[in-house]
Amino acid sequence: MNILVLGGDGYCGWPTALYLSQRGHRVGIVDSFIRRHWDYELGTNSLTPIRSLRDRLQVWRDVTDLQIEPFQGDIGCYEFLAPVIEGFGPQAVVHFAEQRSAPYSMIDRQHAVFTQVANITGTLNLLFALKEFAPDCHLVKLGTMGEYGTPNIDIEEGFIEIEHHGRKDLLPFPKQPGSFYHLSKVHDSHNIHFCCKTWGLRATDLNQGVVYGTMTEETALNERLTNRFDYDDVFGTALNRFCAQAAVGYPLTVYGLGGQTRGFLDIRDTVRCVELACLNPPALGEYRVFNQFTEQFSVLELAQMVQAQGRKLGLKVGLDHFPNPRVEAEQHYYNAKHTRLTDLGLAPHVLSETLVDSLISVAVRYRDHVDAAQFAPTVDWRAVSGRRAPILEDTRAYDQGERHHA
Amino acid sequence: MNILVLGGDGYCGWPTALYLSQRGHRVGIVDSFIRRHWDYELGTNSLTPIRSLRDRLQVWRDVTDLQIEPFQGDIGCYEFLAPVIEGFGPQAVVHFAEQRSAPYSMIDRQHAVFTQVANITGTLNLLFALKEFAPDCHLVKLGTMGEYGTPNIDIEEGFIEIEHHGRKDLLPFPKQPGSFYHLSKVHDSHNIHFCCKTWGLRATDLNQGVVYGTMTEETALNERLTNRFDYDDVFGTALNRFCAQAAVGYPLTVYGLGGQTRGFLDIRDTVRCVELACLNPPALGEYRVFNQFTEQFSVLELAQMVQAQGRKLGLKVGLDHFPNPRVEAEQHYYNAKHTRLTDLGLAPHVLSETLVDSLISVAVRYRDHVDAAQFAPTVDWRAVSGRRAPILEDTRAYDQGERHHA
Repeated sequence: MNILVLGGDGYCGWPTALYLSQRGHRVGIVDSFIRRHWDYELGTNSLTPIRSLRDRLQVWRDVTDLQIEPFQGDIGCYEFLAPVIEGFGPQAVVHFAEQRSAPYSMIDRQHAVFTQVANITGTLNLLFALKEFAPDCHLVKLGTMGEYGTPNIDIEEGFIEIEHHGRKDLLPFPKQPGSFYHLSKVHDSHNIHFCCKTWGLRATDLNQGVVYGTMTEETALNERLTNRFDYDDVFGTALNRFCAQAAVGYPLTVYGLGGQTRGFLDIRDTVRCVELACLNPPALGEYRVFNQFTEQFSVLELAQMVQAQGRKLGLKVGLDHFPNPRVEAEQHYYNAKHTRLTDLGLAPHVLSETLVDSLISVAVRYRDHVDAAQFAPTVDWRAVSGRRAPILEDTRAYDQGERHHA
Repeated sequence: MNILVLGGDGYCGWPTALYLSQRGHRVGIVDSFIRRHWDYELGTNSLTPIRSLRDRLQVWRDVTDLQIEPFQGDIGCYEFLAPVIEGFGPQAVVHFAEQRSAPYSMIDRQHAVFTQVANITGTLNLLFALKEFAPDCHLVKLGTMGEYGTPNIDIEEGFIEIEHHGRKDLLPFPKQPGSFYHLSKVHDSHNIHFCCKTWGLRATDLNQGVVYGTMTEETALNERLTNRFDYDDVFGTALNRFCAQAAVGYPLTVYGLGGQTRGFLDIRDTVRCVELACLNPPALGEYRVFNQFTEQFSVLELAQMVQAQGRKLGLKVGLDHFPNPRVEAEQHYYNAKHTRLTDLGLAPHVLSETLVDSLISVAVRYRDHVDAAQFAPTVDWRAVSGRRAPILEDTRAYDQGERHHA
């Protein structure tokens, strides 16, 4: 298939592009490199050294003889995006090209507005470009399990049959997102659903859980294909951050009680899920939702797993309960359905001691590059203000002075 | 109370500001006058002659000895909005300041993106300004009944108790909005709900039906206080448009079968509902939803009512079923709850023959100003494109030439 990966230079997009290329698809990558820019803004960096997209694609070609076509630009600009869609002729567009951090969206008003405007505008531009230049193309959009929040009933995959006063309808599952970022994904979902109904487009909304891991078979082929590994409090996902903390002897940063339960998945399953969605498109006019995760854990369970495995590896691993910077339920019911991707053939990688070991080992390998000042939460859901926040580096330097860790 | 009316120069905002002022509140109006600008863009105009805000406020002062404070600016600019909130010290902010036309949002990509970005950004700015400068203030936000779409179950007021697999929760009512404009209101609702939960703000989301009428007791005090009356296909609401059509002998433009059923209310009830919400604020941290309409009608029922009354007045009133430019169910179940405002004391003005007569009479009075080219639908839900649409005036001139009406 012709598959265009928007945000193909990022944490999920890069290994997805390689996987799809290795599987024989013709792959194009669209990216503005704004994720790399945010590292400069926040004073953060991937723990693993990552090459420029240009270098990465050259290495991929050298190693596999496969070519991936790059398109550099911002999908917020329709005049850039539309000719790319028209020229590449995708049968599927995989859309990762959004601001994807909840804390980033909660830094201050500017970051909140930026996140919502950028994510909504990029997705609207894409919907219009598909309508105009590729109406049969399948939009595979990355959503998030965080769109649902933590309702006291089972979470279904996108829709729920509601019986009310003797009448029935199958309706969109009610959403209770917990940050301006999560809200932006809910906005996208509503916009995409509308365009499928109104224009006959087809889309799969992948409500993805929290991704862990960094290596896939493809990125492991050569060190210069290495994927990014974020461990800071803004872009680092929970398990990756815990492993980096364990590697340098920094107490694991659990927010609040740690009973917050979420869906998780291995990055090697992310890439497989995306291909499964592409290979099994919905009908024209259909908007469908897959809950894309493989296992549920509480944050505390994950931390304890890392603590146990770290200790076996001879590391000293503490665990700190921080006052929760987020506003969320810390003990709650959570049971989310996730059968549609396994029905299509997904064979999940379950989180094992071996995997936790190997994640910690990646972090240990690069431990000299870990900046412990990036661990402590700097973004407070309650304190987010209308005024421009101070540069985060300043806050971090202060936190580091206060704590003397690592 | 100190009440700030955002969008206070518009169709609903102006009579609301006057009503609240007459009821003894201290009222401020915030407006950017962009609604007047859209008339230039579309080549449309209010059927009734409307004065500048400056003149209107001077007349209001001359007639009633009451002063309303104007603030001219765009709430999309936080640097404008924040000092207004801080300086005025509102106990309630009534927020009408959004792009409110579904067809306008469906003109082309630019209008779709504009509508969503402007509405979301304005409301986010307001939420941040309230958090920072008026955290106890009550946000009274105009939403729309169109957020719900037309589900096959009864529509509740904002929330529905769902029982599922033996467990229960009270969850946001699922939304199925039918245009980029309606989608923007759903986005706002989610954003506001989040800010109430996270920051402890308080808000009432008034999911308003389609408003009809133009005069209130206050605007009737002096002709120079006259409210706007839109009859074009982009900003005109259904009943007002039908009355203007009847006045000039243009066949009423019913889209499709006309079985589309919606909630409606008299503009004199809009202003009362807003005051009732202000006088009965929710608790801090509470987000509540009122369905603000008084009666349900199908579009065809309304048209037939206008036809019957117009004929009694000696007018020749035809009725044309246009191919529906919208994508929507034309025959459907519709039963929406609307008891919370009557519980607070609303005594509805029901739609009567007398009122239809008086609406037609307003239109007859200004019939010489009616531009029949503005009646026919020019915005097609299916044809909306990524490219800039031609100036609507051109399309209209063409339609007029084709049809020879009026």
